Amino acid sequence: MKIAVSGKGGAGKTTLAASIVCWLAAQQKPVFAVDADPDANLGLALGLDGKALASLQPLIELHDLIKEKNAGGGSFVDLNPEVGDILDHYTLRQGAIRLIKMGAIKQGGSACYCKENSFLNSVLTNVLLDRPEAVVLDMSAGIEHLTRGTARGIQSMLVVVEPTRAGLSTALAVEHLAGEINVPQLFFVGNKIRTESDRRFLLDQLPAERVAGMIPFSEKVLERARSAEGAGFRPDDLLPGVEEILNKIGGGGCA
Amino acid sequence: MKIAVSGKGGAGKTTLAASIVCWLAAQQKPVFAVDADPDANLGLALGLDGKALASLQPLIELHDLIKEKNAGGGSFVDLNPEVGDILDHYTLRQGAIRLIKMGAIKQGGSACYCKENSFLNSVLTNVLLDRPEAVVLDMSAGIEHLTRGTARGIQSMLVVVEPTRAGLSTALAVEHLAGEINVPQLFFVGNKIRTESDRRFLLDQLPAERVAGMIPFSEKVLERARSAEGAGFRPDDLLPGVEEILNKIGGGGCA
Repeated sequence: MKIAVSGKGGAGKTTLAASIVCWLAAQQKPVFAVDADPDANLGLALGLDGKALASLQPLIELHDLIKEKNAGGGSFVDLNPEVGDILDHYTLRQGAIRLIKMGAIKQGGSACYCKENSFLNSVLTNVLLDRPEAVVLDMSAGIEHLTRGTARGIQSMLVVVEPTRAGLSTALAVEHLAGEINVPQLFFVGNKIRTESDRRFLLDQLPAERVAGMIPFSEKVLERARSAEGAGFRPDDLLPGVEEILNKIGGGGCA
Repeated sequence: MKIAVSGKGGAGKTTLAASIVCWLAAQQKPVFAVDADPDANLGLALGLDGKALASLQPLIELHDLIKEKNAGGGSFVDLNPEVGDILDHYTLRQGAIRLIKMGAIKQGGSACYCKENSFLNSVLTNVLLDRPEAVVLDMSAGIEHLTRGTARGIQSMLVVVEPTRAGLSTALAVEHLAGEINVPQLFFVGNKIRTESDRRFLLDQLPAERVAGMIPFSEKVLERARSAEGAGFRPDDLLPGVEEILNKIGGGGCA
């Protein structure tokens, strides 16, 4: 099961991604949780230890390795033999969960990150295509880390959408980007649904066959995100409807 | 007055940016509203006409122009003479407001946008450094469109932060990035403050001298964002405290 979660910042994609990861882990399924959004923190949402998270080196910061791997052009093939080592060295384990941080682009003043992106795409492609474990990607709305190569390895992309006009407009933009790189399967997931009119607002403007679920607004999730104590998930904290969503998308394989 | 607004997706930076733009427009000050975040919609927040917004061509889509301008390397100088025309052709006017959309990177499958970024940075630098009008930039947390060159032209960066751990972590990451490119002045603006403990949570972890204001949670803003009718701002819809924030940052000039 290889799932990419995208959507507008603040829509709840990290919360949904963390819920899916925790659901899989609760089934004792080994799962890679890939934090691919510089503007998110999947580790926090998974309730991983703050100190351990701080010491987890993002892949993007491996400048020497990036240069070395890209001497040959940074293609998928270059990394194939070494990718296992890379993953072992740059993952944070908690039970069945293995967290990988792609990391933010941290080169203020530079406008060109081609080699870094090439490296990240190579790792991602390897992870997605070659590993037996489940993979859950928490991605920005730009889905920058997906190329046609990586997209092939994704089973489904879930686009989280709040019942707001800005949220809807971003969700449709993500659908457009995903189509351009031939993501095999895409579903929308409504989130923070407070009223029937919220539900209607989304159902009226999204293709019905592509709506995988509607998640009600959860004061509990909000409170946890606001609490200084921690945003950790436990199985009983899962967003309602996650299992139904996974069942709905489970049928679809790669194109 | 040249202001860049950043922060975590969903924190409310587009709402703050729109409020600042409307406040300036209400003072009859000509202002460029620059939508530099692919994952936002400043035009919607400003209440501009949907049809007009849809027909506004984002700068990023000017591929031919990009190629032409970058033949010489896409430096600031290349664009200097023509930038005025570019702005006239790709702005949407409403009273004193002129909206420019940088646009999303819409090249699914490609990992390299150097020329596009070089072009956008050239335009931005010209706008920021050469124009007499006020400029309000709505930027992603990655502040990708800022280089050391453009940063020089910014008076202040406002980092909008919700009282959540993820919001705080993104805000501090933006501060780090801004420091790397020598943004002259940076302030944090707390948003969606519901309780005194929300206020405390932020004040305990942000440098006091860099907190420009605390904006209370507004059901009104939320309702408008959710309404299918429109997210338009009117002067009486301004986020509370915007004028105080502008007064506080007004003192700081460029370093």
